Formats: sequence, C-alpha cells, structure tokens
Amino acid sequence: MTGVTLADSVLYGHLWGTDETRALFDDRGRTQSWLDIIAALAEAQADLGMVPARAAEAIRARADVSLLDLDAVGEETRRTGHSTLGLIRVLQRDLDEEARPWVYWGATVQDVTDTWTGLVARAMLDLVDRDLAAAERTARTLAERHRHAVMLGRTHGQPGLPITFGFKAAGWAAELRRHAERAAEARPRIVVGQLAGAVGTLSSWGADGPQLQRRFLERLGLGVPDGSWLTARDRVSELVTLLALVTGTLARIGNEVYNLQRPELGELSESSADEVVGSITMPQKHNPELSEHLVTLARVVRAAVAPALEGLVGEHERDGAAWKAEWAFLPSACTAAGAALGAGVRLLTGLRVNTVRMRENVDAQRGYVLAESVMTGLAEHVGRPRAHEVVHGAAARGSRDGQSLREALLADADVTAHLGAQEIDELLRPERALRAVDALIDRALGGRPGAAAHPSPDPSTSR
Amino acid sequence: MTGVTLADSVLYGHLWGTDETRALFDDRGRTQSWLDIIAALAEAQADLGMVPARAAEAIRARADVSLLDLDAVGEETRRTGHSTLGLIRVLQRDLDEEARPWVYWGATVQDVTDTWTGLVARAMLDLVDRDLAAAERTARTLAERHRHAVMLGRTHGQPGLPITFGFKAAGWAAELRRHAERAAEARPRIVVGQLAGAVGTLSSWGADGPQLQRRFLERLGLGVPDGSWLTARDRVSELVTLLALVTGTLARIGNEVYNLQRPELGELSESSADEVVGSITMPQKHNPELSEHLVTLARVVRAAVAPALEGLVGEHERDGAAWKAEWAFLPSACTAAGAALGAGVRLLTGLRVNTVRMRENVDAQRGYVLAESVMTGLAEHVGRPRAHEVVHGAAARGSRDGQSLREALLADADVTAHLGAQEIDELLRPERALRAVDALIDRALGGRPGAAAHPSPDPSTSR
Amino acid sequence: MTGVTLADSVLYGHLWGTDETRALFDDRGRTQSWLDIIAALAEAQADLGMVPARAAEAIRARADVSLLDLDAVGEETRRTGHSTLGLIRVLQRDLDEEARPWVYWGATVQDVTDTWTGLVARAMLDLVDRDLAAAERTARTLAERHRHAVMLGRTHGQPGLPITFGFKAAGWAAELRRHAERAAEARPRIVVGQLAGAVGTLSSWGADGPQLQRRFLERLGLGVPDGSWLTARDRVSELVTLLALVTGTLARIGNEVYNLQRPELGELSESSADEVVGSITMPQKHNPELSEHLVTLARVVRAAVAPALEGLVGEHERDGAAWKAEWAFLPSACTAAGAALGAGVRLLTGLRVNTVRMRENVDAQRGYVLAESVMTGLAEHVGRPRAHEVVHGAAARGSRDGQSLREALLADADVTAHLGAQEIDELLRPERALRAVDALIDRALGGRPGAAAHPSPDPSTSR
Amino acid sequence: MTGVTLADSVLYGHLWGTDETRALFDDRGRTQSWLDIIAALAEAQADLGMVPARAAEAIRARADVSLLDLDAVGEETRRTGHSTLGLIRVLQRDLDEEARPWVYWGATVQDVTDTWTGLVARAMLDLVDRDLAAAERTARTLAERHRHAVMLGRTHGQPGLPITFGFKAAGWAAELRRHAERAAEARPRIVVGQLAGAVGTLSSWGADGPQLQRRFLERLGLGVPDGSWLTARDRVSELVTLLALVTGTLARIGNEVYNLQRPELGELSESSADEVVGSITMPQKHNPELSEHLVTLARVVRAAVAPALEGLVGEHERDGAAWKAEWAFLPSACTAAGAALGAGVRLLTGLRVNTVRMRENVDAQRGYVLAESVMTGLAEHVGRPRAHEVVHGAAARGSRDGQSLREALLADADVTAHLGAQEIDELLRPERALRAVDALIDRALGGRPGAAAHPSPDPSTSR
Repeated sequence: MTGVTLADSVLYGHLWGTDETRALFDDRGRTQSWLDIIAALAEAQADLGMVPARAAEAIRARADVSLLDLDAVGEETRRTGHSTLGLIRVLQRDLDEEARPWVYWGATVQDVTDTWTGLVARAMLDLVDRDLAAAERTARTLAERHRHAVMLGRTHGQPGLPITFGFKAAGWAAELRRHAERAAEARPRIVVGQLAGAVGTLSSWGADGPQLQRRFLERLGLGVPDGSWLTARDRVSELVTLLALVTGTLARIGNEVYNLQRPELGELSESSADEVVGSITMPQKHNPELSEHLVTLARVVRAAVAPALEGLVGEHERDGAAWKAEWAFLPSACTAAGAALGAGVRLLTGLRVNTVRMRENVDAQRGYVLAESVMTGLAEHVGRPRAHEVVHGAAARGSRDGQSLREALLADADVTAHLGAQEIDELLRPERALRAVDALIDRALGGRPGAAAHPSPDPSTSR
Repeated sequence: MTGVTLADSVLYGHLWGTDETRALFDDRGRTQSWLDIIAALAEAQADLGMVPARAAEAIRARADVSLLDLDAVGEETRRTGHSTLGLIRVLQRDLDEEARPWVYWGATVQDVTDTWTGLVARAMLDLVDRDLAAAERTARTLAERHRHAVMLGRTHGQPGLPITFGFKAAGWAAELRRHAERAAEARPRIVVGQLAGAVGTLSSWGADGPQLQRRFLERLGLGVPDGSWLTARDRVSELVTLLALVTGTLARIGNEVYNLQRPELGELSESSADEVVGSITMPQKHNPELSEHLVTLARVVRAAVAPALEGLVGEHERDGAAWKAEWAFLPSACTAAGAALGAGVRLLTGLRVNTVRMRENVDAQRGYVLAESVMTGLAEHVGRPRAHEVVHGAAARGSRDGQSLREALLADADVTAHLGAQEIDELLRPERALRAVDALIDRALGGRPGAAAHPSPDPSTSR
Repeated sequence: MTGVTLADSVLYGHLWGTDETRALFDDRGRTQSWLDIIAALAEAQADLGMVPARAAEAIRARADVSLLDLDAVGEETRRTGHSTLGLIRVLQRDLDEEARPWVYWGATVQDVTDTWTGLVARAMLDLVDRDLAAAERTARTLAERHRHAVMLGRTHGQPGLPITFGFKAAGWAAELRRHAERAAEARPRIVVGQLAGAVGTLSSWGADGPQLQRRFLERLGLGVPDGSWLTARDRVSELVTLLALVTGTLARIGNEVYNLQRPELGELSESSADEVVGSITMPQKHNPELSEHLVTLARVVRAAVAPALEGLVGEHERDGAAWKAEWAFLPSACTAAGAALGAGVRLLTGLRVNTVRMRENVDAQRGYVLAESVMTGLAEHVGRPRAHEVVHGAAARGSRDGQSLREALLADADVTAHLGAQEIDELLRPERALRAVDALIDRALGGRPGAAAHPSPDPSTSR
Repeated sequence: MTGVTLADSVLYGHLWGTDETRALFDDRGRTQSWLDIIAALAEAQADLGMVPARAAEAIRARADVSLLDLDAVGEETRRTGHSTLGLIRVLQRDLDEEARPWVYWGATVQDVTDTWTGLVARAMLDLVDRDLAAAERTARTLAERHRHAVMLGRTHGQPGLPITFGFKAAGWAAELRRHAERAAEARPRIVVGQLAGAVGTLSSWGADGPQLQRRFLERLGLGVPDGSWLTARDRVSELVTLLALVTGTLARIGNEVYNLQRPELGELSESSADEVVGSITMPQKHNPELSEHLVTLARVVRAAVAPALEGLVGEHERDGAAWKAEWAFLPSACTAAGAALGAGVRLLTGLRVNTVRMRENVDAQRGYVLAESVMTGLAEHVGRPRAHEVVHGAAARGSRDGQSLREALLADADVTAHLGAQEIDELLRPERALRAVDALIDRALGGRPGAAAHPSPDPSTSR
C-alpha cells in the first residue's frame, strides 16, 4: 500500500480512508469484484442454457484474484488499450478450451464496471447506515444526558440567547436521521446492476436478455434497473450528492467542536489518547484534530459532486468522458466519506462536555443575553412597546457603564416601578428562556421509546 | 424589470427565467411572501391569545406589497443594517397604535426568511412535479410512436449497434420519472417552515412556542420541522441538488438533440417558429437553440451546488455567511431551473424525428454494426470461438477493401460453408439485434395501461 | 431596480453589488455598451471607406440607450429568437435609409458580446486595481501602527506562539499585493475585444478584416487578440478565477475579524454606525456583518469558477452552451466581487484593534505559549535533547497542577540549576519569540519608501 | 503499486498518471523529498553555526528513503497522531547521539510540507512548460501544413462558413502559448518554500531566522516567500487553477477531435497502434480514446479547484482544515494534469487529418455556407440592403426546393441581372471567404521566423 493518494499511504492511510473502503477500490478488491460479476454472469447463463454448466463452474473456480497474474492483466490492458480485454484474456489463459469462450459472453465493459458500481453503492450505503446509526445514537445520548446543561447559543459568532447542550446535540441527531432517511429512499434506485450490452439493448442474448439480466443480478443481490443506465448516470450523481450531504453534516459537527474547543470558550473538547502529540514544542497543546479533519474530508467529498453532476450529461448510448470520470471521483468520494463516517463516530463517542465552562460563559454575559426575557416580563405591566423601550434603554446604559443587566435594571425607575429584585432575578434565570426546550428535544429525537408515555399526544404541549 | 441578471432582462428574461420563478424572488414577490408570513404569525398568535385579534386583522389588512413603500423599506434597511427591521418599521408606520407592537412579535429574521424558503421550495417542487410530468408524458409518447424506428446506437461518438428511437426516448422517460420520485420523497423534508426565535429555542413564547409554531405553519400550509434548521441547512442543499439532478437530465436530452441535429446526422431537430432567425446571413441555418440552452441552464444550476453544500457547515446557532449565500444561489438556481423545465417541455413537445435519416444512417454502416448478430448466428454451426475468429477476419478484410459486411461474408468460404445468402441477410437485419427492445421499452415506461394484459407475469419473456 | 437577484433589490442591493458593477450588467448599461461597440464599428469601417461616413455619424448619434425603445427591442428579440437582431432592427427603425444598412455591417453576435466582455473585464480590472490598492494601503498602515502589538498566534484554533498584529496585517498586505500583480499580468491577455465574424475568419471584410479589427478595437481602447476567441475562453476563465482569488483573500480577512471579534477573544471588531441594529431584542449585540458578508460573497464568486472552467471546452467555431453560460456567471461573479472589494476596504478602514485584549489573551496563557523560548534558553546549558525533556516535563506538570509555566519552571530543580528567576522571566517575555518579526514585516511590506534607509541591503538581517 | 486511485493501478495507472507525477506523491517519492528538505535544513543551520557540521552530514547521509523503515514511520505516525513526528523519530533512531537532536531543529510540520509543495509546484511547472511547448510545436506544424486545407467552420453544431484546418490548429497553438505565459508569470510566486515555525515568525531562530530561511531555500533552489504562507494559500490556489486552465484547453482539443472523428464527419482521427481493440465484437470500431480521456482528465483537475479556492479562507496562523485538504486535491490534480499533458501531446502528434473529407463536407453544403460572399458580391451592384434581400430569398427558395445555392442563384433574375455564372462561381469559391486567414494564422502563431520578411509592418494587410 503506497500510492499517490494519502488513502493509500503507509503513513497517513488511517486518516484518509478505511480498510473497508480501500478494499472496494484497490486493484485486488476491484478485480475480485469484477471476477465475481463475470462468474455470476456465466452461472446465470448456465441456468438459462446459454453456456455449458461446466464452463460456468470452471469460470467460478478461477474467479479468485489471488489466482490471477495482475501484472499480466496490466500488460495486456496497456497493449490492447481496452478496459477489460486484459482481464478476460488472462483469465481465459487459465481455463480449458471448453470454458474459455464463455468468459464474459455477450457482455461489454460497462456491464462489468457498472454492476461493480452497484456493488460499491451497496457497500457504501451499508456503511452509511451503520455509521449514521451509531453517530445518531451517540448524539441522542448526549442530548439526553445534557438536556438541561445551559450554554450560550451563539449567532454570528456572538453570544445570543441561552440554549442547552442537549438541544444542540438533538439537532445533530435529527440531521443525521434525515440523512439516514435519504439513504434508505435512494437505496432501491441506486443499488442496481447493469447488463445492457454495447448500447443497452441486451442485443447478444435476443429476447432472453431481460431474463438473463434478472437472474444475473439476483445472484449478486442487486436490483434490476428500469432501463439501461449506460448514459443515464443520475444514480451515480445521487450517491455522490448523498455522501456530500452526510459528510457536510459531519463537518458541521466537527467545526462546532473545533470552535467550542477554543480555550477562550472551552465548552467541548475531543478526547485523545495519551500518546497523541499536539505539538512537539508545546506539551499542553491539544488540537481538535478529528474535528478539523471532518471539515477537510467534507471538502474532498464535495469536490466530487461537480464532476458527478456534469456526468449526467451523457452522450448517445455510451459516453466515455462522463463515465470514466467516475473512476476518479467515486474512489475519492467513497474513501473520504468512509473515513469521515468513522471519524465522526469517534469524535462524538469521545466528546468531552464541560458543563461548568458552559454555565460560566453564560454567566459572563452578565445577563444581557436574557434581555428578551425581561422585556417579556415587563410587557405584562406596561405593554410590549414600552417594555421594549425601557429594557432597551437600561441595557444600553448598563452596557456602556460596565454594569450587569441586573444592576442596570435595578437602577432604572421605569423598571423598578413594576418589577422587584426577586422578579428580576426570576426573569434573568436562563431556564426561563428555555421553557420550550424539552419539547423541542423530544421532537428532534423523534419517536423514541417512552415518548408514548406522555399524557398528551402532542409532546410539544405536554410541559 | 431590468437588472444585473438576464432573468430580469427586458431583452432576454424569457430565456433565463419564467414569470413563475421571477415572482418568487423579485422585491415585490419576495416581500409579499414575507408579509404573508408576518400576517400568518400574527393570526396564529391571535388564535392562542398572544396578540389581540384586532391587531392581527390590522396586520393582515396591510400585508399587501402594493400598499407598501418599498423605497422607504430600502432606506430604512440600509440605515439600520438589519435585514427585516426596515420592513417592520415601514409596516408599523401604517398601523394604528394598537396593532403596531404586535408586528413580528417575538420572531427573528430567519423565522421570516426560512419560512419563505419553505414556500419557495414548495413552489419549486410544484413546478418540478408539473413540468417533469409533462416532459415524461411527451417522452413516453415519443417512445410509443417510435418504438420500432431503427437508428444507430452510438458509443464514444461512433456507430455501435442499432437501437430504436423509442428505446432512447423511453430511457429519457425513465430518468425523468426517477427525478419525480426523488422530488416526492424530498417534499416532506423540504417543505417546512421555521419559527425558532434567535437561537432555535422559541424563547419568546415560553412553553407555548411549539404550539404557536404548529398553528403558524398550518396557516401557511407548511410542515413543522423536526427541529430548528437555522444552521442545519441540509434541506436547502437537498433542494438545490435535486434541481441540479433534474436540469442535468434535461441537459442530457438537449445535448442529444444538439448532436443528432447536426446535418451530417440529421436524425432529430428542434421545431422553431417561422420568424425565428438562425443567422442573419445564412437563411437556411437552423440552430438547436433550445437544446444548447438546456446545457447552459444546467451549468447555471450546477454552479449553485457547491455553495449549497458548503452551507451545510453552519456554525453555532446562526451563521450569516452560510445562510446569506442562499440569498444569492437560491434565486439563481431556481430561476434557471424553472427556465430549463419550461424549455425541456417545449423541446420534447416540438421535437421532429426524421426516421428516414435514422434508417439511412444505419444502412450507411454497410452491415458492420451487425457483426455481432452474424457471429451469434455462425456460432450455432461452428461454436463461439471459431465464429468470432471467422467473422472478425471477414469484417477486417471487408472494412479494409471497402466492401459491405454482406459482401465480405459472401466472399469468405468459412462463412458460406455454413450460412447461405438468405441466412446472412436475415442475420444482418437490424431488427434481429433488437429482439429485447420491446420488453425493455415496456419496463422503462413502467406500469403502463395494458401491461397487465401480458399472459406472463414476466414482461421480458412475453415476446 | 428590482429583480430576482439581490444585487438588484431596492432593499438589499447595497450589500450584493455596487452601482459601478450594476451599471455594467443591467439592460441600460449593457445595451449602451453594445451601442458604443456598434458605433465604433461603423466609424472604423468609415475610416477604411467600407461604409459612408454619414452613415457612421448617424449610427453614432443614435447610439444612446436613452433614445432606444428597450421594450421594442425585447419584443423583437423574443420574436426572432436572435440575440442581437432585435437591437439592430429597432436601431435601424430610427435611422434614415442611407444609414440603415450599415448598422452592424458584417458583424455577428459574439463580435458585439465578446467585445463587451472585454470592456467589462477592463472595468473590473480597474476596480480590482483601485480597491486592492486601497485595501493594501490600509493593511500596511495597520501593519506599521501595530508592528509591536503582541497577540496570540493561533494554530488549529488553539493558542500557539505570540505574533504581533502588525505581522498579521503585513501578511494581508502581501497577499493583496500578489493579487494586484496577478491582475496586472492578466490585463493584456484579458482586456481585448473580438471582431471575428461568424467563424473567426473576418470573412465579411476580405483581406481588410485584420486592419478593420485593429482600428475598431483602438477606438474602444481594447487590445487586439492574438486570434479569434469565439471558443477559446481562457480569457474569461482567467478573469473569473482572478476574482475568486481576490475575494477568497478578502474572505480570509473577514473570517479572521469574525473570529477575533468573538467577545471571548475580543481582539478586533468592526466599526459600525450608531444606527446599525445588531439585534432587535439585544441592544448590546454587535455582529460582524461585513466580515461575515465577505465570506458569503467569496462563495458567490467561487461558484462561478466551475462553469467558467467548464466553458474552456468550447466546441468547433462557436459554442452557444459554453458561451451563453457566461451571461449568467459573469454578472454574478463581477457584481459579487465588486461588492466584496468595497466591503473589504470598508472593513479594513474601520477596523478597531484592541491591543489591550490582545496582550491579556497572551498573558492568560500563563507562559505556556513560550515554552519553546525556555527550551532554547535552557539548551545553551544542557543541550537540546535534555532541554526539551526538562521543559516538556515541567510544562506537563504545571499544566496538570494549574500552575503558570513560570511557577512550574521555578519548582523544577533541573531548570533552576541553570536558570534563575530573572533569566526565566526574560525567556518568558513574548518579545523574545518575536525577534525576526520586524524583518519579516519589512519584507512583507516590500519596497516601501524608507526601506532603502536600512544600513544593510538585506532587510532581514538588519536588526 | 496498487491503490484506491487509478493512477496507482497496475491495470490503469498509465491512463491516469505518469511515472513523473506518481513519483512526486507516493510514499517513497514524497518521503524522499521530505528527507531532502530535512537535510537541507540541517546543512543551512550548519552553515550558520546553529548545528554541528557533523550532525548535518550525518542527517544528510541518512536522508535516503531506501534506508528508512517506512512501516515503522507509519506505526509511529499513527501512535502519536502527529504528521511528521513519526518520520523524525525513526530517522533519529538511525543517527548517533550527536546528530539526533538536530533533526528538524526548530521547524514545524508545514515547514516541511509547504516546502515540499514548493518542490511539487516546481516539478509541475517544469512539466507544464515542457509539454505545453511540445503541444504548441505540434499545433504550429499542423497549422502550417494545413494552412489552406478548407473545411467547414461550425457554429452551434451546424455548418457555418468555411475555415481552414490550419486556422483551427493555429487557434490551439495560440491558446497553448497563453497558458505557457501564465505559467511563466506564476512561477516566481509559486515556486517558493516555507520556513516559518509554528506561527510564521521564525521564532526558534531569533533574529537569524530570515537568514536561515534564505540559505535553506537556496539549497533547494526555491524562492524566498514575501511572508509566511501558512494560511495564505493563494499560491496553491493559483497552481491548481493554472492546471485547470491548461487541461481545459487540452479537453477542448480532445473534444474537437472526438466530434470530428464521428464517421459522419470523418475529418480528424486519432492514430492508434494496431493492437488496440476498440470493441471486442466490432473489429472496424475505432474509438477516440485519447480525445475522450482528455475531457475526463480535465474534469478531474477541475474538481480540485473548488477546494483549492475554499482553502484561501485560512484561519489564524495555521488552519488544518484548509491546508490538509491540499493533501487530497494536489495529488489528484497534479497526477491527472500530468496524464493529460502527456495524452495531449500524443494526440496532437498522432493526429490524422483527412483533408479530402474536409473538402467534401464543405461541398456537401451545396454553396449555402457561402451565401455571405454572394451577398457581398451582389451588393457592389445593388447595395447592401437589396443584395441581402435578393440572396436571402434565393437561398430560402433553393433550400426549400432542394437546389444548390448556385442553381437557385442562376434561377433568380434579380441575381442574373447583375452576376453571370462565372462571377457566381467565383463568389462561391470557399477561398473567397478566407482572404484574411493567412494573416490571422500568422498572427496566432506569433513572431515566427520569417515574419520579419513581410514588406509591410502590418502583417495583416500584407496579402
């Protein structure tokens, strides 16, 4: 393992890909998958009496990349300039005369490569399902555990109103679940094979073509497409955009941790093994490596979207320019997405939540982030417009004079005429601004176990 | 109507947008929509006793852009540097003292603008549904009408095996239908509103927030989101990628017509009104204007995908950089997509199909595109490997010597030993390579009327 | 002014475009430019005796958009489906019989529109030059003024070693200057016109074509291209990538301010007029609006790069799909870039620098960001490896026990054996880590006036 | 060699990369480059007396990847989570105690990796220079050889006016030369190294930092940057956009050949070795493989531009997210660009030009593409407006009735009143529309030898 992409690097491979995704795309994994497809085709043809059963058996027996001379395949590929003829010829060399002619019978390049794309799509969706579920589970746990951990909500990088960390984590869970839904909906469209012949008409096999196609794809566990997709690449585009959506959300979580891990904020931090070295010279340095890397990986996946969408404009019955671009961007997008999913789960699982700092950062705002609450409270006495005017004025003065909002309010006769110190303190409790948060968290976490126990069918009004 | 984008041009607006999409985004349309939202909010608040009913009525009565001084709104917007305060203040000017304080009560900017985004999404999906259905219908009609119109299938820009034009059009129909499915699946996720308050907690309305949100969105016919999406922009990304997928397919159809309209091919052409001028100096010139333009418009929509996906990485509880970019790319993507959908329907509806040229172009290949059929036929006598060798040799010789494949085959004793002229002629009939095409068209067109009449449950083996 | 893009909005136009850029692209501005081109062509033709001088004069006299019935042009454009025939015919209506035939004589659409693109490019480069110069000037002033204002350098969002704010600003200045260089180098390639005829051969004018082209472009102040660029769009791609580079840097500056304006950091802030309202409910809220917007605008410009690069693949002698896409992305990229340049200058000019908070944030690190200095100092006594080990150990212990690095060092016998308190204090002075900074700032600011006064020709060794 | 990207594939590596580019990025090549940098640093430090000369010699002696245990480096990299610590530690293991502490002294990760990026940039620019020069040379030869080979100019995929193939090829040469200019201008900006320390201040080396940096970079043959570019990544963006521009033009040439190789046009074709197999079943099939692949490779390079431009928005003094993305897109863009440059040269060198078909395709237009010439000729008798009207009418009638334009003109009394058959024949000679072409080709080919021999200083009027 060593190649031009870091996913293959002995040094950095663990950051840019996973063994699972690498196995889909490296020469051995990809070629094994192609051999499986060639064997399944021969077997399906044998089922229909198109090729001798013994030929199919012989092909299956040799459909093993560990038996194959890959260098010879490479040489023959270069010599013929043909994408699969090298593989066919080297495979044929190892077969007896009876089986030899039946390798790849009637098929063409994209029959193999597109069917492989369907297998890759299945593997990626499996991986997306598994890792999104794990990430969502962890986000839900965080949401429940820190349901009432008050922290600053921030808008435009500035302190806004309070939220809870559980509320933030519930938002992550909901977004991850939406992606899981998208993946589930896309699956039947995407996880299909090809068997089309040169121009999509299944010409080699006469009227038996459609039946052969069905049997062939059944053997591989792939759906039968509603038509040739030789130049109808919406399936591939959909897969790549889905991966970009998923990794975009993981980048959002990573970016959030990156910022909340700033020591000036100090609310979240990545866990890291003891041996991890943030900086050679600064022993105390603790970098948000995973978080940053999620942002990076999302960019890598996103970069694949433009060529994936451009590939929709396929020409005639086969378009090498559009289709071959997939050979570059699919490995790139899938390996990066696989790495991101793994990193996302690790980040969430190991996340350290500093609820003390969260509360301190709210308190450091000296009440100003709760001006809205005070307005609402004062409005019950003087009406909304007047309340707005009074609180706004007090806040502006207090802010200018370095007072807390509480001090500023207590110094304002227009306020104290209606609100006593105790009432003001009540209005300045962050929890007052969070009365809907429990309902919102419940809704974001969806039909979780126990939700039915709510006395009211409408969780949002139950408290 | 005159602005920096051609969608607004007096001269070119008809090519780059439609009245429907323009009305979503220009100052009047957008502001009317915002006024509707502000009125719906007041009414929902009145329902819950949060604001006086008379105030809600008064707000509704003034929620009419034709009554609004837009220039004053602009001036106030510039003065305050706030996205909605200008609108609020000018609207308040026209209200009496009772209603004035209740405009926009407790809401913040994104409550209005994101809810508007939900309305835009609904309008766009309606338009996508309608125009995709029309385009698919026309493609189906083409598929049925030209089911057996033989033409060249082309691979890598070169003649491959024959197809029929109906087969090609059926592939278009299937792809368009897949997009309609995607749009239907995305709709419940995308067509939701917002009402979140500054940080998503519905803080202004205490525990009544969720109930208010539901009533508010019901009035607008929008779904209730599973959580604040102030910085969870996967919905917006999904909408834009969907539009890019749809317009990518329309560009594929356009590009196909563009190429098949080359006079050297001459198989398809756009219809055009008599007054349309292709070239001032070349009266006979007939340019594939719509076709080309579909390719252009797809690029415009595709360009919006990168910022839409980048916008997934929203920071904290509100992220101006990510969200405001939508204000640029959503109008651009939606107007171009609207124009493309209209143009796509027009192109398909007016498409001229020259079945004579299609057949001539097949015949001009002098049989070589049917070598595969001959191999298959000869293989019944001499086995596949030998048949491949013989036909390959004959074809190579014939091609070199300027013969038709028929001539080359008849001159080859290894062929004529097994196949007579009549058999060869039968093998060289394009229809022989198209025996699965009827079944494939039926499958691509889906559950069409009459499909149930097939004696066999498997349509692909029924003929 | 009201259109689908916010650059045209009465409400938001000031944020998304400038009057300068709008005037390049709206119907009036663009059409006036086209009329200028048509008049210059007639005049150049008159110079060469190709058209009557009186005709050229008459055309020039009517080449005034305020005299033109734009609605009629629009109607005729729609009727003919031709990009410029509408304009020609309406213009001809207003001319007498003598002049009428000579409008646009021998020219074709792209002769006008590409020449206009050259004029747009010139205007944009002028604007880039002017605003980059202003921004660089301001950055240089900041660099000089805050040359020694110590602040935290941050890596991965974490405190690293100290820098000065002048050092940061000098880096901005250098990057802005590199863009100015790029713009200057690109100018002669980009600021050219077209006059090519239908396929680039200047066919209408026989052997006089090249001479006519030169005279025509001289009149417009545009360069003569080294060949037809009807489908050689590298010039347009270069312009758009240049704008993306420039606005990317402005976004970097904006993002920096956005983050350093977080109140938890508080080192920089935007100035804003008193009337600007950050938040309706939170009077103290001060959002980094311009800073965020620079990030947004860079995304808008960047989105144009993909279609600009795709447009390089122009087909044959004219390619409507590639070329027409420019009509969408050029206005979008140029207006956003114009807005960004203006906003960038405003941001830098009004930037508030809180050097007190900068220093406090360094001090709050309690010395740990200066561990490297201590290592270097100790190494003079015990060698590098041992110094690293000792300081690393002390820092780790101090960090664990909540001590400052000074306390931790003083508590470590391996340190105090070699370094006294005074020496330690000296090593912990941030300025010690900044001994190269003056030279680096000088270098980044380039050959500024006064630089020659350095005693040594090598500024980096002069102190 | 086997990895997730096809550039590393035993089977397909020859199509997706070159040995030259692979050697820049695979573990061995990259690590060797890093070792060279580490050795050069030690040597420069030894020059300045910062490290013992013997240590520098020892480090240089071990700076050989073939002596390095890469697996151990990988293991240590994973264990520490640090990008270069693994390499340092394994290298140190092999050094004696004297040299060990001086490895990488005072440097940080980006000092090594960015300097390596500078070396990669130099290698890529060398490659761009060499291959662009070769491609331009070949295009010039084609331009000279086929200077007068008349062929159809095509607009919107339709026959327009005649051009010559030499004119087309001269346009390619000019565009390639413009890229060579861009590369030359970018070189001094791009081909620089880094030596900055953790935050760009060269803190480890005190006031000697700038001098060390200069000596270090001199040893590597890299320029000294005008400032730290740790988060100023405009250089990287410029490199990637340059590669996208270059490969975009190669794709334009490829796409042109692809289309002109359609047998219905048959004007150009790729050469291919005898053993190359276009299609297993269709022996006569000859696919434009290289041409298509140029289009594909340009998409791969273009995909890197979005993250490269996004990377401009670097945060603070080091931004892992932006910078690490380069580790993914640089190898991808550079290997694809390297492959494209090689393929572009091969395509041009082997290009087959069928001047007979070119002329036949012009003739097949039956004169209509020369209507402009006839108008110009007739205008001398009846004035421009009348000539346009008459010829337009004749052409429309002839086109409708299936006549050649010559037949239509001869049948029109308004024509024959002024033009005899011989004059019409002269006007219908394609060469008449090409009178400026020689001058245009000369101009596009620039200051070629012999140009000075023109009697007139203005080459465009000399014939």
